[in-house]
Amino acid sequence: MTNERIWTAGLIIIGDEILSGRTQDKNVAQVAQWLNLQGIRLAEVRIVPDVQDRIVVAVNELREGYDYLFTTGGIGPTHDDITVDAIAAALGVPVVVHPAARAILEDYYKDRGGVSEARLRMARVPDGADLIENKMSGAPGIRVGNIFILAGVPHITTLMLEALSGQLEGGRPLLSRTVGCRVAESEVAALLAETEKAYPGCQIGSYPFFKDGRGGANFVLRSTDAETLDRCANALIAALAADGREPVDGAI
Amino acid sequence: MTNERIWTAGLIIIGDEILSGRTQDKNVAQVAQWLNLQGIRLAEVRIVPDVQDRIVVAVNELREGYDYLFTTGGIGPTHDDITVDAIAAALGVPVVVHPAARAILEDYYKDRGGVSEARLRMARVPDGADLIENKMSGAPGIRVGNIFILAGVPHITTLMLEALSGQLEGGRPLLSRTVGCRVAESEVAALLAETEKAYPGCQIGSYPFFKDGRGGANFVLRSTDAETLDRCANALIAALAADGREPVDGAI
Repeated sequence: MTNERIWTAGLIIIGDEILSGRTQDKNVAQVAQWLNLQGIRLAEVRIVPDVQDRIVVAVNELREGYDYLFTTGGIGPTHDDITVDAIAAALGVPVVVHPAARAILEDYYKDRGGVSEARLRMARVPDGADLIENKMSGAPGIRVGNIFILAGVPHITTLMLEALSGQLEGGRPLLSRTVGCRVAESEVAALLAETEKAYPGCQIGSYPFFKDGRGGANFVLRSTDAETLDRCANALIAALAADGREPVDGAI
Repeated sequence: MTNERIWTAGLIIIGDEILSGRTQDKNVAQVAQWLNLQGIRLAEVRIVPDVQDRIVVAVNELREGYDYLFTTGGIGPTHDDITVDAIAAALGVPVVVHPAARAILEDYYKDRGGVSEARLRMARVPDGADLIENKMSGAPGIRVGNIFILAGVPHITTLMLEALSGQLEGGRPLLSRTVGCRVAESEVAALLAETEKAYPGCQIGSYPFFKDGRGGANFVLRSTDAETLDRCANALIAALAADGREPVDGAI
C-alpha cells in the first residue's frame, strides 16, 4: 500500500436520445474500460439533454471536480449539435473555426459534394482547442484544457479513444479479480465485509445473479496493487470454502 | 400549444460495477421509457460510485431539481449496499427497520434459512418511508418523499416500476415520430432547423447511421401534442421530398 495519486475522470453523455430511452447508451462502458487501461478512474457520469444551460453546469462542475472530463455526443452538423457552443460558453471563450479541422473536412468532402455551411459546423471549436483524430468520418474530436470532446456514435468514439491511448497521464490501472459462488449473498455478507476490512486497498463488490435455474453471486475484488488483490482473493476463496461453500476462481 | 406543466425526474445509478465498465447499464433506458408512459420526462441521469458522500450530494441536488428522483442499485444485503444509509443521511433522518418489510422478509425466507442480520438489512428504510412491492425476491423497494429507491438488477427494477405504474402524477406523455432518409445529415441541416422552427413545441433530433453499406439519418420528432407532431412530420417529409430526397415514414 502506497499513498499513490489516483487520477480521475468525469464523463458527460449529451443527448436527448439517451434520456428518452430511444437509444441504449454504449459509451459509458467503453469509456470506463478505456480509462481503466490508462490508469484513470471513471468517477462520475452525467447524462444531460441537448440544452445549453444544462450542459454548461455539468461541464463546469465535472471539469473542476476531476482530473479529466470527457463528453460524448452533439458534435455533428445539425441544429441539435450544440456541444461545442456549450463548452465554449462554460469556459468563457469564443467559438472559432479551427484551420486544421477545416482542412480535414475540405479534404474529406472533396468528392462528397464539398464543404457546406452545415459541414463547416464540424470545424468549430472552443478557442484554444486542439484536435483529436477521427479516421472514420473526417470530423475530428476536440481537446481543450482538460476536456475531451468525443463523438456520440459508439464506433467513432472508439476511434477517438484509440487516438488518445497512451497520451494522458494516469496512475496504476485498477486491477480486478472475480470469485464466483453458488451462494445467496445474504448468507456470506459478514464474511465479505470481514475479508474486505482485512485487506486495506482492496474493495469487494457483490453482484448476485440467477443463471441456469439457480442463484449465486460474483464477488468482484478491485485494487491497484496486484499482490494485495491476489492475497485478498485467495483469502476470500479460503474463507468461503471453510464456510462450506464452493467458490470458483473467476466469474460464474 | 398550451402552457402545460412538464413533470420531470432525475435518476441516480449507484454502483462501482457500472463506473468500472464491468456491467453494461440497462436501467437508464428502461426507466426512461417507463417514465415517458407516465407522462414524466427523464431530465438528468447521474452514475455515482458506492461512496456515501457522493450519493448524498447527487441525491440532494436531484431531489430538489426535479419533481421525482429515482435511484437504482445498492439495496441488497452486503456491505457495499449503502443506498438507504446515504439517502437517510441526505434527508437528515434516521434509518429504521420497517415492520412490513421485516414481515415480508420473514415470510420470504421462512423456508430459505430464516432472516439473518444481513437479510434484515433489506428491511432498513429512511424514517417515514413506504414500501414498493417486489414480487420476485422479497426485498421491497422504498418510497420516501419524492424519492423512489429501486433495485439495481434490471429485471427486479422492472417489477418495481410495474408496481408503481399509474401511481405518479404526470403530464401528457412525450410522443415521437421518426422520419428516415438515405441522406447525409449535413446536406439537410438547414432544412431540419427551419422545419423545427416552424413548429414550436416539436423538437427534431438527427441521428446518423450506417447500414447495409450505406449512410443515412433518422430524424426523431418529439412533442406532447399529437397534432403538432403529425403536422411537423408531414412538413418534414414534404420538404425532404421537395429537396429531391426519398424520406420514409418511420425509422430506417
